[in-house]
Amino acid sequence: MVNTLYLPELREMLAEHDDAGLEEFCTALHPARTADFMEGLSPAESWEVLSHADVASRTEIFSYFPREKQVEMLETLDREEMGQLIGELPPDERVDMLEQLDEKVVSELMPLVPSEERSEILLLQAYPENSAGSVMTTKVVSLSENITKQQALEEVREWGDQSETVNYLFLVDDAKHLRGVVSFRKLVFARNEQRLSELMERDVISVRATEDREEAARLLGRYDLLAIPVVDDQNHLVGLITHDDVLDVLREEATEDAHMAGAVQPLEESYLETALLTLTGKRAMWLTILFFSGLLTTTAMSHYEEFIETLPWLICFIPLVISCGGNSGNQSATLIITALTTGDVTMKDWFRVIRRELIMGLLLGGLLAFFGLFAVIGVGFLLPDTWHILATTIVPVTLILVVTCGTLTGSMLPLMFRKFKLDPALMSNPFVAVIMDILGIVIYMSVAQIAFKMLTKTAT
Amino acid sequence: MVNTLYLPELREMLAEHDDAGLEEFCTALHPARTADFMEGLSPAESWEVLSHADVASRTEIFSYFPREKQVEMLETLDREEMGQLIGELPPDERVDMLEQLDEKVVSELMPLVPSEERSEILLLQAYPENSAGSVMTTKVVSLSENITKQQALEEVREWGDQSETVNYLFLVDDAKHLRGVVSFRKLVFARNEQRLSELMERDVISVRATEDREEAARLLGRYDLLAIPVVDDQNHLVGLITHDDVLDVLREEATEDAHMAGAVQPLEESYLETALLTLTGKRAMWLTILFFSGLLTTTAMSHYEEFIETLPWLICFIPLVISCGGNSGNQSATLIITALTTGDVTMKDWFRVIRRELIMGLLLGGLLAFFGLFAVIGVGFLLPDTWHILATTIVPVTLILVVTCGTLTGSMLPLMFRKFKLDPALMSNPFVAVIMDILGIVIYMSVAQIAFKMLTKTAT
Repeated sequence: MVNTLYLPELREMLAEHDDAGLEEFCTALHPARTADFMEGLSPAESWEVLSHADVASRTEIFSYFPREKQVEMLETLDREEMGQLIGELPPDERVDMLEQLDEKVVSELMPLVPSEERSEILLLQAYPENSAGSVMTTKVVSLSENITKQQALEEVREWGDQSETVNYLFLVDDAKHLRGVVSFRKLVFARNEQRLSELMERDVISVRATEDREEAARLLGRYDLLAIPVVDDQNHLVGLITHDDVLDVLREEATEDAHMAGAVQPLEESYLETALLTLTGKRAMWLTILFFSGLLTTTAMSHYEEFIETLPWLICFIPLVISCGGNSGNQSATLIITALTTGDVTMKDWFRVIRRELIMGLLLGGLLAFFGLFAVIGVGFLLPDTWHILATTIVPVTLILVVTCGTLTGSMLPLMFRKFKLDPALMSNPFVAVIMDILGIVIYMSVAQIAFKMLTKTAT
Repeated sequence: MVNTLYLPELREMLAEHDDAGLEEFCTALHPARTADFMEGLSPAESWEVLSHADVASRTEIFSYFPREKQVEMLETLDREEMGQLIGELPPDERVDMLEQLDEKVVSELMPLVPSEERSEILLLQAYPENSAGSVMTTKVVSLSENITKQQALEEVREWGDQSETVNYLFLVDDAKHLRGVVSFRKLVFARNEQRLSELMERDVISVRATEDREEAARLLGRYDLLAIPVVDDQNHLVGLITHDDVLDVLREEATEDAHMAGAVQPLEESYLETALLTLTGKRAMWLTILFFSGLLTTTAMSHYEEFIETLPWLICFIPLVISCGGNSGNQSATLIITALTTGDVTMKDWFRVIRRELIMGLLLGGLLAFFGLFAVIGVGFLLPDTWHILATTIVPVTLILVVTCGTLTGSMLPLMFRKFKLDPALMSNPFVAVIMDILGIVIYMSVAQIAFKMLTKTAT
């Protein structure tokens, strides 16, 4: 709400060409706050405000705008100026942005981007999607391991804002191989004539550019790093992934996992930005797969149709029975998928997992069976007396079996996915639901048939 | 695998009392790697290895052990030594650890923790769960805004490893109010006689200790910070939340959200560490709630039992129809929950969301209706001719209605939860499933009854 309060003042400053006021506006606050305050300005107005900032602040404020606004500005404002701006943006961010621009606009903008930056864009775009290389920045500055502290400090001062992080200084040999790392703090407090090779840690945690970006996130988290250097296959330093890139990766991965668990193909853009037909397509694929798997329930049901006509009240409990199986299966799948993601459970724990899930399935099934007994008695008053006793056995026994099947299926499916090198999050939950629908029907009907046979036998 | 290779060597060094070798082992690598290599050593062996490290390295290596191992060591080894160790651990980590120890052990250990650290533990434990205060470290060192660069640098050197981060230096007035921040880098390159008050940024992003830890994570992410200062209600600097704490918060929150979506009450420990009965209890609660809500399907079904006896083939499609509604509802709920979490959708977008979901529901429902038509014809060959035409209308029409109801329910429920200040992740998915089970049955049966009436009318 605060943000819009400042809009009229900003507009007034623009109308009055209050250059001094606008200049102060662009520098007084954290660039992210400045960006927030500019919410509601049109692309053209925003650009006019930004023209009062120096290059560094302008780029920073721009990179804090919502992605939607950035895209709108790049697409609608003067091509020449936008080409320049793209050249000034951090390498990893501009690649992200270009992916979301209209292709025609990109082809018009690219020739206007300074040539050095243009080749860097092409370089980053060449890395496979979701690789460490695709999220790294190439703005990493390295020092020779043979210089002294004094020389190093001079170099760092000269970089200015060139490097995204100066907390770690990466040291390379003459052929640019990554050799070590020294913290800026350690450098500052070293003696002036000390060589970096004496100060550096040789055990550098790094990640290959072609590895999965999740691996980079994992390493950074495990080793509590502020940034992790990215190397090529020959251990040449090619880039850097900083902690804020990792935050973005983690957020995206969490959203992707949630989408997959909900049977939606992960979106590339946000919900409201994704075109309606694209979104429909991403949902249609899995709905169709689930529909055709669900047809098996129809086959199963038609198989038992005749038997159900003998005991029509059975159908009353069909939705309840299959939803209990689905719920318990879903719980197990969720628990195991999250535990696999965080590393709390690994493949070697499979036996412990089965044992735990078996016990929990029996306990939870027993509990629901107990409730089910009362439910059946409640409905049972409507049934002829003979069936009464029968019904009180069928539903509870079914519930124990279905819930236990649910916990076992739900826990084993993600482990199997992992075993076959598939992402366990990939559709495990909806698959578990489909499997439990079918198993639920088959178990319920089998239990009923057995009970029915036993009863007719004792009756004769 | 690599890890176990080194175990025999480590054990040999221990057996031979190779002090020099063990000392080197404790210092040569990143402490996290050292911790990894010690996987498989018993608590006593691990402690013997650690006794060869200086205090700082020992604490660091210990804090990279898996939580299970830490707890085992603290519970089984010499109380006196463990009390000391707890005193040396980072304040936020030790509070976490103490929560997982046996209460009896804690009561024995606490008197052995140095008194200053003990009162710090009590201080942190007093903050509400999931607040910024509960995850912060109190090891934040502040400088007076009135000293010069030269003096500040001297102080930073003296702190040594006292402060968790030296990238930001927080400046306070005489009454300890947070006044500004200066980056270590800026300090290093300032002139010796410059006062910190001239160098500092006054627009400090900070978080209140009583605010939600998620807010701290959001701010750190939004402003690309390495650490965020924590203040009390009077703006006194009381602690610091660093980027690695935020990574942990994000991971935990993502897991919690996933658990809630899967109808499991979030766990406090990992899957394998949680006691079996605790875990069963956390699942039982929601399974029971879902069971009793599911009983409504039984009521609905018994209401239509008689009608179904007229058209027994209808039951074949019951599981399919309700699963289609559940699936489309789940997709929408997942999309909206994740979009609300990331902030891509806010309450003010509700109308756009309804419109999008309505269109998608009709499109997806239409698609499934098309497939459903063929499915019915497939099963339909078994039916008498008159019903044939009837069936081909009932199921497709039902599918369109059910899928559209699913998208609308799935998208509106999380928005309603948010409206009533409830966590949208809270059980939305399982609730959507239950609601769609009931709605599915009611819609299916109503469509069938209407079609049946129309047909009998035209027949007479």
